[in-house]
Amino acid sequence: METTERIRAIAQAAKQASHLIAVLPTTLKNQALLTLADELNKKKPLLQEANDKDVRAAEDKGLSPALIDRLTLTDTVITAMSEGVVEVAQLPDPVGDVVTMWKRPNDLLVGKVRIPLGVIGIIYESRPTVTVDAASLCFKSGNAVILRGGKEAFHSNRALALVIQDVLKKSGMPEAAIQLFPLIEREAVYELLTLEDYIDLIIPRGGEELIRAVVEHSKIPVIKHYKGVCHIFVDASAHEEMAESIVVNAKVQRPGVCNALETLLIHDAIAPSFLPRIVSTLRKRAVEVRACKRSLAIVPDLKEAQEEDWYQEYLDLILSIKLVSSMAEAIDHIEQYGSLHTDVIVTSDYSNAHAFLQKVHSSVVMVNASTRFNDGNQLGLGSEIGISTTKLHAFGPMGLQELTTLKYVVYGNGQVRE
Amino acid sequence: METTERIRAIAQAAKQASHLIAVLPTTLKNQALLTLADELNKKKPLLQEANDKDVRAAEDKGLSPALIDRLTLTDTVITAMSEGVVEVAQLPDPVGDVVTMWKRPNDLLVGKVRIPLGVIGIIYESRPTVTVDAASLCFKSGNAVILRGGKEAFHSNRALALVIQDVLKKSGMPEAAIQLFPLIEREAVYELLTLEDYIDLIIPRGGEELIRAVVEHSKIPVIKHYKGVCHIFVDASAHEEMAESIVVNAKVQRPGVCNALETLLIHDAIAPSFLPRIVSTLRKRAVEVRACKRSLAIVPDLKEAQEEDWYQEYLDLILSIKLVSSMAEAIDHIEQYGSLHTDVIVTSDYSNAHAFLQKVHSSVVMVNASTRFNDGNQLGLGSEIGISTTKLHAFGPMGLQELTTLKYVVYGNGQVRE
Repeated sequence: METTERIRAIAQAAKQASHLIAVLPTTLKNQALLTLADELNKKKPLLQEANDKDVRAAEDKGLSPALIDRLTLTDTVITAMSEGVVEVAQLPDPVGDVVTMWKRPNDLLVGKVRIPLGVIGIIYESRPTVTVDAASLCFKSGNAVILRGGKEAFHSNRALALVIQDVLKKSGMPEAAIQLFPLIEREAVYELLTLEDYIDLIIPRGGEELIRAVVEHSKIPVIKHYKGVCHIFVDASAHEEMAESIVVNAKVQRPGVCNALETLLIHDAIAPSFLPRIVSTLRKRAVEVRACKRSLAIVPDLKEAQEEDWYQEYLDLILSIKLVSSMAEAIDHIEQYGSLHTDVIVTSDYSNAHAFLQKVHSSVVMVNASTRFNDGNQLGLGSEIGISTTKLHAFGPMGLQELTTLKYVVYGNGQVRE
Repeated sequence: METTERIRAIAQAAKQASHLIAVLPTTLKNQALLTLADELNKKKPLLQEANDKDVRAAEDKGLSPALIDRLTLTDTVITAMSEGVVEVAQLPDPVGDVVTMWKRPNDLLVGKVRIPLGVIGIIYESRPTVTVDAASLCFKSGNAVILRGGKEAFHSNRALALVIQDVLKKSGMPEAAIQLFPLIEREAVYELLTLEDYIDLIIPRGGEELIRAVVEHSKIPVIKHYKGVCHIFVDASAHEEMAESIVVNAKVQRPGVCNALETLLIHDAIAPSFLPRIVSTLRKRAVEVRACKRSLAIVPDLKEAQEEDWYQEYLDLILSIKLVSSMAEAIDHIEQYGSLHTDVIVTSDYSNAHAFLQKVHSSVVMVNASTRFNDGNQLGLGSEIGISTTKLHAFGPMGLQELTTLKYVVYGNGQVRE
């Protein structure tokens, strides 16, 4: 078969399968997910054998230890993956909920019902765990999914897909509900991105370059976030101890992720005491600080931040610090350099907390808490499929509910329009 | 100024204005809208003078009477436009509503708050009434808007924009909150469609060709519907009188709009009595019927429908009719030829009503009511900005609420992540 025809056939099969799984009873979906969780544990040796091929190839190519770490399916990783599937089975099924219904003057009853989006394409890098996470979330929310993982994880993903396909088959469900995209050329993916008649949503997960390429080529709606330049603003009235523990947690607990802190904004009034304190604590935790000129007047031996530092998502033990003379200046900074991801105020002032929550336009705005809580699980959505910093459809972490949409249902008894 | 710079300046100004109007108190927004409603009435002569230029040019070019009708700002049209603005002022302000809030085990309070989308671009054809409708809906929902109407309505739109700008200025609000796109070349619009850093949503309103061109060129999310191929399925158990009045209303009351009926599906069991009856009634109303081969066995002098008829949005007094042997066949037909717009079952069977509502994937699915009710106003949303048949963000008619999104707000008291 021609590549183009083959891609179209995958998308068409997904569309067809999506109609079937859209109306599957919750119990059947949950049973299939629990079977999958079992099978992942049972097939551990087989999965690890396939994974070894990927890991050895990555080592031969000299890929980074961080990448190889994310690629490797250890016993612990497979167990966690299986537990994740059980968790998804335990989450409430959003499909079919009537979220609101009202009566019109002519007695029409108008309701909005939650339905799956249809077919979702997930394009990601070399993390085989995403294959199982994404498949189970899409399946539970009644969506068909087409998975396109990074080529470094090709054997691992193929082995995982075989396990998944086998479970679907045994459960009497359409295998096309969860498909692995078989081709590894990027150009083939671009073809997939034009099939708007079959695919309802594309979610790219990975580096900014990958995401920009997807947006560039897609005719299908894309939900994404380019990066997470997260801020904490320590207000004049902040409790210093609380501010310190939040800043350290946000920067140090896991620096390589999108909800880690990148820029700290400190109110002038608290800077003389708080700046030396936080710099000293951060240094003990091996964090490199790059600070604005005015900070240097308080702590002279700091490295000076450059204009480009304010745009940086370091994803590393580096923090930029800037003093501001007001909350308004902090908000302007966030507006100019931020990425609509996660921004925090630490304050004990009621009206500043209120105003910050209202005026900062990011998808998650917090008072007195670590940026690291911007995560579907931490916020109580259950497992997450990703984080959106685009305002359309979903803004912030996306759980099962964000993989659905609302259709109108109207109950009449013969009404016609005047 | 270069065209490119000029377009960027418009978009940038809109973004800046959007931050201000996002947090405007409801009363100030309503006052400005009521002033606008007054001014539209007061400036009637001025508006009509500008409109005359457009109408005369359209007549000279020999444009269709339907287009000229939509273009003309009669006294009645201006009064209705002004009343529409008053209605928008009276609608509840969706901005700032906390739609849900829950507590996490660590005492974090997590809420979702309704916020404006930001900047919306509306691209439409030569209906000057859309200029005022769209401006007032976007303004009320706290969004800045860039309006690009058809070139045939250029003078009318400019006059309307002057009235709007004047009201904004007098009310002390940023004039860039509502801007008319000054250029009439389509290529300039394509440049606008790439400015994803400033514009959050594009809504094209018009013919399928316009909409496809916008989707093709836009990097910004687009909400749209290509067409409305609406179906009514008359089930075996339908009350014939009810079915007749719904079908006639759906086809005849206003045939040129997207929620008018295009294809009638009739269950075999009721066809021998219902088909001759409905054909005779439709003929009296000057409707041309194109029917499937099997219909011809019951009413021999019908014109036979061709395969392409099932895809047609006639927007005219033409109806295609097909007999089906089951509800499943009706649903398959809708799936294959429909446009996810509006589909109706007329039935007196409870379980068929239930199953039809569940299995048909369209944005509005109805039982025993006319397709013509798919309209924001008729369904109780207030005025509508458009209808979406894309599942992302909004599916079906879009009112004020669909011009907003939800951001997360998190209230902590020092929580850090373990």
